[in-house]
Amino acid sequence: MKIQVALDTLSLEESIDLIESIKDDINIIEVGTPFIIEQGIYPVKVLKERFPHLEVLADLKIMDAGEYEAKKAYEVGADIVTVLGVSNVVTIEGVVKAAKQYGKKVMVDMIEVSDIVNRGQQLIKLGVDYLCVHTAFDVQSVTNNPLKELQQLSQVVNCRCIGVAGGVKLNTINEISLYHPEIIVVGQAICASDNPIQVTKEMRGIIDGNN
Amino acid sequence: MKIQVALDTLSLEESIDLIESIKDDINIIEVGTPFIIEQGIYPVKVLKERFPHLEVLADLKIMDAGEYEAKKAYEVGADIVTVLGVSNVVTIEGVVKAAKQYGKKVMVDMIEVSDIVNRGQQLIKLGVDYLCVHTAFDVQSVTNNPLKELQQLSQVVNCRCIGVAGGVKLNTINEISLYHPEIIVVGQAICASDNPIQVTKEMRGIIDGNN
Repeated sequence: MKIQVALDTLSLEESIDLIESIKDDINIIEVGTPFIIEQGIYPVKVLKERFPHLEVLADLKIMDAGEYEAKKAYEVGADIVTVLGVSNVVTIEGVVKAAKQYGKKVMVDMIEVSDIVNRGQQLIKLGVDYLCVHTAFDVQSVTNNPLKELQQLSQVVNCRCIGVAGGVKLNTINEISLYHPEIIVVGQAICASDNPIQVTKEMRGIIDGNN
Repeated sequence: MKIQVALDTLSLEESIDLIESIKDDINIIEVGTPFIIEQGIYPVKVLKERFPHLEVLADLKIMDAGEYEAKKAYEVGADIVTVLGVSNVVTIEGVVKAAKQYGKKVMVDMIEVSDIVNRGQQLIKLGVDYLCVHTAFDVQSVTNNPLKELQQLSQVVNCRCIGVAGGVKLNTINEISLYHPEIIVVGQAICASDNPIQVTKEMRGIIDGNN
């Protein structure tokens, strides 16, 4: 299981310092959507150059112009690009095409997908690498965590193709990791922590213990 | 009726030159999604400062963290921010909240919304300013243009709240403008034209003739 750290609210400098301090316990650096709104695709380039041994994910949440937009991220060094599961199949096919061209990967963000089981199976057939069940930030106060969708999806899709995101915390990561998703996305629980090094180490320990 | 020019593939310098040359015939400058991926929110700031008499739209296509992401655009000068119609109601409410705080506007991109009539009416009640029917770039070769959805939506929603996007051209703008949508979005038909000044003037003439 991999830990993906979502950088949403930090500056580029703060992000570099944070990743430097936790780099041995994480696997994927996510340049989050608000970070891209703030600075464009540039942080992807900088972070990949600085941390070549880690994967870098560009959370573009693509909804249209799949091939065109995905290429913008792959060509500056992104290893993984996200596309929305609610987008048109043609858009997702475009992202897959770009990924194959660059030898990179595609993650589908399943946020607001209503029929996660059928859509998930369809998307795997299209050639995407990961399906990420995702409790939106905006609904995290209403819906506790993405556990139910994780449970549903893990019954029909290989767990090596599953990611989990949305308010993952130190006290929820154990339950999540029992399903062995390939990628667990952690944002504020690390980035807004007073002691990110310690939190990340503990998370690493918990999920490695369930491996 | 307003003409919104979508800047997707030009550099910031090219964009400024283009807008300078057509500024008297357009109303809204759209900083498109690929432009934001490339450069972040910065072009919104530059274009608003350079063309204060035009409205500037940030095509963020927000899917989550509505209030947080929208603020990033409003605070640098965006007059209108887009949110996806397929996103959670809470996300759209967040964008509306941010817009009210800044005295700015919200456009919902209706791309991939399945029940455009009911969802449209629901969204207007939430306080959004515009619903934009939108034939995705990725499906424009399959589906000709957004005319059918425009027709459906204009039967239930005031045309002052309707926008139209997706492959609008000189030879389709007349038919579209017969429905009197408030905003007609034009992208490549102007931006990739050999003579954008002439094309824009002709489009202006056609829609003003139908006013």
